Amino acid sequence: MRTIELLSPAAAAAGNTVPLAKGVASLDGLDVVFLGLPHQASMALAPRLVGQVGCVVDLSAAYRLRDASLYPRWYGFEHDQPELLAAAVYGLPERHREALAGARLVATPGCYVTAATLALAPLLDAGLLHRRGLIVDAASGVSGAGRAPKPDTTFCAVDEDFTAYGLLDHRHTPEIEQNLDAQILFTPHLAPMNRGILATCYARPADGAELSTASLLATLRDAYAGEPFVVVIDGSPSTKATLGSNAVHVTARYDSRTGTVIAIAALDNLTKGASGGALQSANIALGLDETLGLPLVGVAP
Amino acid sequence: MRTIELLSPAAAAAGNTVPLAKGVASLDGLDVVFLGLPHQASMALAPRLVGQVGCVVDLSAAYRLRDASLYPRWYGFEHDQPELLAAAVYGLPERHREALAGARLVATPGCYVTAATLALAPLLDAGLLHRRGLIVDAASGVSGAGRAPKPDTTFCAVDEDFTAYGLLDHRHTPEIEQNLDAQILFTPHLAPMNRGILATCYARPADGAELSTASLLATLRDAYAGEPFVVVIDGSPSTKATLGSNAVHVTARYDSRTGTVIAIAALDNLTKGASGGALQSANIALGLDETLGLPLVGVAP
Amino acid sequence: MRTIELLSPAAAAAGNTVPLAKGVASLDGLDVVFLGLPHQASMALAPRLVGQVGCVVDLSAAYRLRDASLYPRWYGFEHDQPELLAAAVYGLPERHREALAGARLVATPGCYVTAATLALAPLLDAGLLHRRGLIVDAASGVSGAGRAPKPDTTFCAVDEDFTAYGLLDHRHTPEIEQNLDAQILFTPHLAPMNRGILATCYARPADGAELSTASLLATLRDAYAGEPFVVVIDGSPSTKATLGSNAVHVTARYDSRTGTVIAIAALDNLTKGASGGALQSANIALGLDETLGLPLVGVAP
Amino acid sequence: MRTIELLSPAAAAAGNTVPLAKGVASLDGLDVVFLGLPHQASMALAPRLVGQVGCVVDLSAAYRLRDASLYPRWYGFEHDQPELLAAAVYGLPERHREALAGARLVATPGCYVTAATLALAPLLDAGLLHRRGLIVDAASGVSGAGRAPKPDTTFCAVDEDFTAYGLLDHRHTPEIEQNLDAQILFTPHLAPMNRGILATCYARPADGAELSTASLLATLRDAYAGEPFVVVIDGSPSTKATLGSNAVHVTARYDSRTGTVIAIAALDNLTKGASGGALQSANIALGLDETLGLPLVGVAP
Repeated sequence: MRTIELLSPAAAAAGNTVPLAKGVASLDGLDVVFLGLPHQASMALAPRLVGQVGCVVDLSAAYRLRDASLYPRWYGFEHDQPELLAAAVYGLPERHREALAGARLVATPGCYVTAATLALAPLLDAGLLHRRGLIVDAASGVSGAGRAPKPDTTFCAVDEDFTAYGLLDHRHTPEIEQNLDAQILFTPHLAPMNRGILATCYARPADGAELSTASLLATLRDAYAGEPFVVVIDGSPSTKATLGSNAVHVTARYDSRTGTVIAIAALDNLTKGASGGALQSANIALGLDETLGLPLVGVAP
Repeated sequence: MRTIELLSPAAAAAGNTVPLAKGVASLDGLDVVFLGLPHQASMALAPRLVGQVGCVVDLSAAYRLRDASLYPRWYGFEHDQPELLAAAVYGLPERHREALAGARLVATPGCYVTAATLALAPLLDAGLLHRRGLIVDAASGVSGAGRAPKPDTTFCAVDEDFTAYGLLDHRHTPEIEQNLDAQILFTPHLAPMNRGILATCYARPADGAELSTASLLATLRDAYAGEPFVVVIDGSPSTKATLGSNAVHVTARYDSRTGTVIAIAALDNLTKGASGGALQSANIALGLDETLGLPLVGVAP
Repeated sequence: MRTIELLSPAAAAAGNTVPLAKGVASLDGLDVVFLGLPHQASMALAPRLVGQVGCVVDLSAAYRLRDASLYPRWYGFEHDQPELLAAAVYGLPERHREALAGARLVATPGCYVTAATLALAPLLDAGLLHRRGLIVDAASGVSGAGRAPKPDTTFCAVDEDFTAYGLLDHRHTPEIEQNLDAQILFTPHLAPMNRGILATCYARPADGAELSTASLLATLRDAYAGEPFVVVIDGSPSTKATLGSNAVHVTARYDSRTGTVIAIAALDNLTKGASGGALQSANIALGLDETLGLPLVGVAP
Repeated sequence: MRTIELLSPAAAAAGNTVPLAKGVASLDGLDVVFLGLPHQASMALAPRLVGQVGCVVDLSAAYRLRDASLYPRWYGFEHDQPELLAAAVYGLPERHREALAGARLVATPGCYVTAATLALAPLLDAGLLHRRGLIVDAASGVSGAGRAPKPDTTFCAVDEDFTAYGLLDHRHTPEIEQNLDAQILFTPHLAPMNRGILATCYARPADGAELSTASLLATLRDAYAGEPFVVVIDGSPSTKATLGSNAVHVTARYDSRTGTVIAIAALDNLTKGASGGALQSANIALGLDETLGLPLVGVAP
């Protein structure tokens, strides 16, 4: 497999598409191209690459939302590629493994979205949860905010601080809702750590559902039997236990006192939550072993 | 004002009540005694002190719960002092300032409880929120776990980690429910920082309530007008903004899309969440200026 | 005492001296003006203020170095105010308390400089140390790098990292040498914390000096007897023990095995290392109680 | 290769040698046994294993010091196995690669020792440095202190703190001196991070040596040409750049102003500084590829 690193981050940040345009031809025939670009830069480039290379794996949000009409509201731009949106395969193997085989364009999910989706989807699939009023309360390490220095992400701003952000309107909201076919309120928080996402999700039982912690855990275990990277645990997931690995740890509880389901997922936002997940999807798209290059065991402490 | 530090932490930890018993006489006539002891050590000592000293301010949970029957379930011991429970004044000045004046026994609230109560109480008082199905999702710095070294609180265990604990059964649950006269599911998390609590609370509107973010903020501002330590903010509260001070920062949002109220409070768990709150209550009990010795401005960064 | 906050940081950063020039008149007659500006902005403003206000306390390096010829080499600009350099009083009360009384222009020392000077000066004064080949190896929290976001001070760059910087040529070198009348090699390091400086200093004994740890500590204790903010300790100084306070903790050891003296100082770079030290000097300059507004006890943990 | 995990950490901590004695027979014939035990537990076990298994790689200090007479002073116990001490090969491949081939007993170096040795040894070998008066000033992450909870290693004790410890008498001192055949003063510090060691070393030039930064770097580059894990860099080594990898980053400077050499090394104390280095030595002892299982690229951020 040849690899070419075509685009400097600086060029991408400057929105400078001339070198991209010039360079695209040199990518012809590659097995796979990963795009780590601003949303609109991906959207400008992907149509030229799809079909020219074996598989385009996009890490932006440009091809994540099925419904093009959501882009203006949540991302502030019009999406004018309905065919490519429809053709893109959502890069969450635990949900779309079959479609990923041979995919030409993969949309890698958002980091929070992967955590929330893997915590809740099997419980919704099994008809256990009410589809309205779900809450995803999550915390992320600072690397989720990108590399560029900003006032909010200096060491002195973040260290010893815990705070919510993006109240009511974080862009991962519609993506979680799309994955779960449910109504979600999503509240992200910034935690003083480099990596890691913990999503603590709350839901009410579906009408008539008889729930227990044991049945919730059994449902998760059934759903993820055979999954190489999802680990259902009895204890409480810890972001650190997944640091540097492609693993996701999930658990669930039923609180009979208040009639509430809690489902929790932990992952590393830079591996399973981004590039690790992208690689997992690419492996599948290319017919390789799905776990190639993806550790299950990370770094501790 | 005389001060005497009578009890070594080691003696208290060992549950060694002999020196306590011997030493109590030496406390007679003091204006105020602060008890920073295990719950049952406080319960053994307080009855001997109340009446002998001007005011006993207890920082344990021994006198926090009005309903003695809750102690076996949530704390694992029987409470056999119903009169003292009834006589104790709950040390949250924003809710019980009048009763605190001249109080002989003050029960300082739990750190999480103070945050959740101050975020939600005015909205419940105003009849804006449904009293069932409330969720308090909170994160705390490590000092909330006490000073004793434990496997879960070593630097290498905590740093770069974010995790939930006490799922479904944290002891602050009944205390929050008591304060709010509402049903609460409480999920605490441990964040890699020394100090600080952020409580992110979710509720549904009361039947028929017409809500907006503006009306929620106005309700909070009305309730806390004149409060020296509660600051209602439009932005998102940050634990670090309260570090080392006795301040509480609160805000609220109404998400009309999902019909959910979010109320958030940030405080320093060691000041307003514990000893600062205890001092504020003591100031009131003793007829002193409520803000004596309590900074509104903390340490940054 | 009136206070006026005249200059926005943004204006200062932009080097925009027009508003400064306009605003200077409004400062006339103030008891004290603190300048927290870039070196050359201070140098432009101070001459207009000295004499117009009671005392100018400058926190930049503009008036720290007695020898104007050092500025081009270490700071990259010419210093054209030899009279003001000569008139400025160096704002380290432990060394210049008498001169500070009534001072019209105070040059607040650099943060590392204060630590290194207070660790070593009494030992040099007593003739115990060789004046050549001293080493100051120090670590600082990130707030020492200022508030502006930079690639090197983002949370993700700094957290979990320890690294040296400014090898051989950090600007505090000539200032330490000036204070100690000795030859210094200074190596600063960046530690993943908000505040704090620890200076670990190495020196050889003066020719013929008979040293012991006890005699070094006794020399420090004699020198700092009566000092309100310098605490000589037998143990190992910890930056955290000084966090948020104006205290400096110092100790010393003599290693008879290798014939080396170690002197260590810890302080909070934002209090005693900067604004706290500036306030201490201002208190003296204005004839106020030296400790006014300056805590000896900080925040823990 | 079979692997057996014989000894629970708890059993080892309790010094319980009965299960060890019973279990040793089950290890017979293994290719390699790694001992991660207290010094004296290793010393009790190693003689029974050497010869019974292919290679014993000990991670304690039991076989690090050639001179048995150093043990009582620095470790507090007598060493009664002079033959095994003499037979053990010191597990620093960059210094003892040939002797490691086929070694039956490997003594893995201390974490600080590896850093200091790799920074200084080539410069001493080349005759550039004076062999007396060297200073090794180093900082370590908290994992260097082991897993057991202690008052000094709780999160609240360590976070936001930087402090020296083991002044004058840290046990790695004689080991560094042995490796370098030089006199060393070693001062370790504890930094608020999980992993990483940075050793900043100071030395004077050998008599008559004409030094420059360029010549020091060239000497390091020559010495480490072909080394798979040592990277000589022009910049300033950062612990984080080595996190999770087996890499060591080294640099050097000559300060002509003060006539001082600075040599700096950064590594991850848990990989190259301990288990990674042990694995590297085992690979060589067993005739495997030296880099097997050892990453050069770690985790960032």
